[in-house]
Amino acid sequence: MTTFSFEIVAEDPHSAARAGVIHTPHGDVPTPVFMPVGTQATVKTVSPEELRRVEATLILANTYHLYLRPGVDVVADMGGLHRFMNWDRPILTDSGGFQVFSLAANRRISEEGVTFRSHVDGSEHLFTPESVVEAEEQLGADIIMPLDECVPYPCPHDYAEEAMERTHRWAERARRAHRLPGQALFGILQGSTYTDLRRRSAETIAAMGFPGFAVGGLSVGEPKETMHAMLEACVPLLPRERPRHLLGVGSPEDLPAAVARGIDMFDCVLATRIARNGTLLVPEGRVNIRNAQYTRDPRPVEEGCTCTTCQSFSRAYLRHLFQCREILGLRLATIHNLHFLLSLMREIRARIVAGDFTAFQKEFLTRFQAVPDKVRLAEAQRRRQGRLRTRGSDRVLGQGR
Amino acid sequence: MTTFSFEIVAEDPHSAARAGVIHTPHGDVPTPVFMPVGTQATVKTVSPEELRRVEATLILANTYHLYLRPGVDVVADMGGLHRFMNWDRPILTDSGGFQVFSLAANRRISEEGVTFRSHVDGSEHLFTPESVVEAEEQLGADIIMPLDECVPYPCPHDYAEEAMERTHRWAERARRAHRLPGQALFGILQGSTYTDLRRRSAETIAAMGFPGFAVGGLSVGEPKETMHAMLEACVPLLPRERPRHLLGVGSPEDLPAAVARGIDMFDCVLATRIARNGTLLVPEGRVNIRNAQYTRDPRPVEEGCTCTTCQSFSRAYLRHLFQCREILGLRLATIHNLHFLLSLMREIRARIVAGDFTAFQKEFLTRFQAVPDKVRLAEAQRRRQGRLRTRGSDRVLGQGR
Repeated sequence: MTTFSFEIVAEDPHSAARAGVIHTPHGDVPTPVFMPVGTQATVKTVSPEELRRVEATLILANTYHLYLRPGVDVVADMGGLHRFMNWDRPILTDSGGFQVFSLAANRRISEEGVTFRSHVDGSEHLFTPESVVEAEEQLGADIIMPLDECVPYPCPHDYAEEAMERTHRWAERARRAHRLPGQALFGILQGSTYTDLRRRSAETIAAMGFPGFAVGGLSVGEPKETMHAMLEACVPLLPRERPRHLLGVGSPEDLPAAVARGIDMFDCVLATRIARNGTLLVPEGRVNIRNAQYTRDPRPVEEGCTCTTCQSFSRAYLRHLFQCREILGLRLATIHNLHFLLSLMREIRARIVAGDFTAFQKEFLTRFQAVPDKVRLAEAQRRRQGRLRTRGSDRVLGQGR
Repeated sequence: MTTFSFEIVAEDPHSAARAGVIHTPHGDVPTPVFMPVGTQATVKTVSPEELRRVEATLILANTYHLYLRPGVDVVADMGGLHRFMNWDRPILTDSGGFQVFSLAANRRISEEGVTFRSHVDGSEHLFTPESVVEAEEQLGADIIMPLDECVPYPCPHDYAEEAMERTHRWAERARRAHRLPGQALFGILQGSTYTDLRRRSAETIAAMGFPGFAVGGLSVGEPKETMHAMLEACVPLLPRERPRHLLGVGSPEDLPAAVARGIDMFDCVLATRIARNGTLLVPEGRVNIRNAQYTRDPRPVEEGCTCTTCQSFSRAYLRHLFQCREILGLRLATIHNLHFLLSLMREIRARIVAGDFTAFQKEFLTRFQAVPDKVRLAEAQRRRQGRLRTRGSDRVLGQGR
């Protein structure tokens, strides 16, 4: 069995961007990588075959969700997560820390862990750093995350510090509990929006010697500039030769910006969730395919796009499917958005290797009309207050992890 | 362009069953055939590619639905229905007569046609035999149905007779209005559950010289024996050399029984609708995959089945998807059920050609546990009264057309 390792293939001379390869027991993952989110052992609306077609290499699943349904013992009995969901490429499991803090009810945090009530049936459960590692060992992903404490945004400095220090102690307990060979346990950095905390978190977690690192607690409603400042504070303190995951961040405009700040791995429900709402990503920004202007538009969603949606169907047909709430529409939109993000990541990697990343970043951002911060923050606000309709079980604070 | 024709390849010596081929401008359809129902220009949850994989040859779309959304002019502008939905094999459009009588509100029937309010937005519309043919010419299917009047079950003899005679006059008007070369307009028989009316309808419609015939108004709540008696009354009066479609009927136990009575073509939403409810067809009958007994069942839904669902996923995984209301589950179940019905039809055809159909019918019905009439009729009753939850836009009376 291949054990986990990371190699750097190229480094951008003008930024902290790097191109690499993560080696795992289930195959190689070229980085920077975007991983589609398969919260409940399925990337919503698409099949494993379709994920292979959009050239996904690594996908994320969620320990909190799989612990509740169908139960990690069920997944283990069925031969582990890869076999259960028929995905033979690498998988990363998030710890469920974020979900305990965003979805579950009646949380009680203690040094031991966190007690919560299931959002599914109200039953009470306790997650400890050790029990979460054990659950993730049963699921059998290639990369796993330890239990962390996620704080809301904004968060007072003293509470952010307290939660961060608990997260550090939990990280050490997770590290000691972890046994499964071949599986890599990452360390998670916290620290809210405070550069002093972010720096301390990076130093503390780095000192524990994890094979990879994840930056948590960002894109939860703070301005983009704050997120960038936090990355600039903590990423340089992480060891160069280990991969870095930015948890729950992945809007198209975030990706090159975070890569430029040294991030190698991304996951985010944004692209797949907005797809199910009829919002499609194109090089110019976002398109709402339900708009009347597409009623008789024979063109593909994105001209020149090689995804099966664009190769097979018109904007008019997609609009019709969304107007009629036909399930095929959700899938076709998801396939396109995943293809868009994965192509973007391949292009970013190629341009890093070509020594041309900074130019690419400018080109991309000149063309791509990002959603303005004002709109984005208002959305995050409404989502936190439960006023923005979210669907399924991947509803989250902020962009979503 | 190939024009429409039908050839008989083999006839069963012990029943009215026959094997044939329908030739259409978009290719050949071996019969007996089951056609998946793509009401709104999409067979719910599956892609055209998946339809090709289950070897669908002919699919059905619905004029009522497409007239309301996106509008037949939109479909025409986009190059017709085949191109719009990216399906290059034969298509049949139902007239929408059944939907006007089952879905629309405020129906007013006159000799001219039927005025109704859209179930989507309450807008008022008039369907005449001529306007429906014109709409179907714009959609451009290979086989089209004329506007008919569908009566509820049970229905008094005098009203069934009146509606049938109007249906006959409308059929003649549709025949005169129809112009599109290559497209075949079928004649629809009605007559409720009265053998005298069914015979008169067959004689009258047959005399009009349509290239194919459809039997309407069955499987709307009547016992199976009544349906069989109606087929026995009308089918022998139809010309041998023309194909015969039994509208809206297609539970597994209905198919061999109707083939034995001379039916060549079937459409029904049953298999795809029950799939979305977690009910899967297997040689022994129906399986509700949500049952707890499948929680740790590593076997495919049907052992030995060659569909992509059974080749790729366990019962445990399917159950998990349904428990979590994951959209992929709806698709995997639909693929399996379509594969089941289409395989059954291929087997029926092979056994007719082999001169062995009657033996097959016995084998199949011995093994397959059909849903008892009592349960089926109670379901139809509740559905009529709106007490059985139905989904999407293909809710219907009875099994559904």
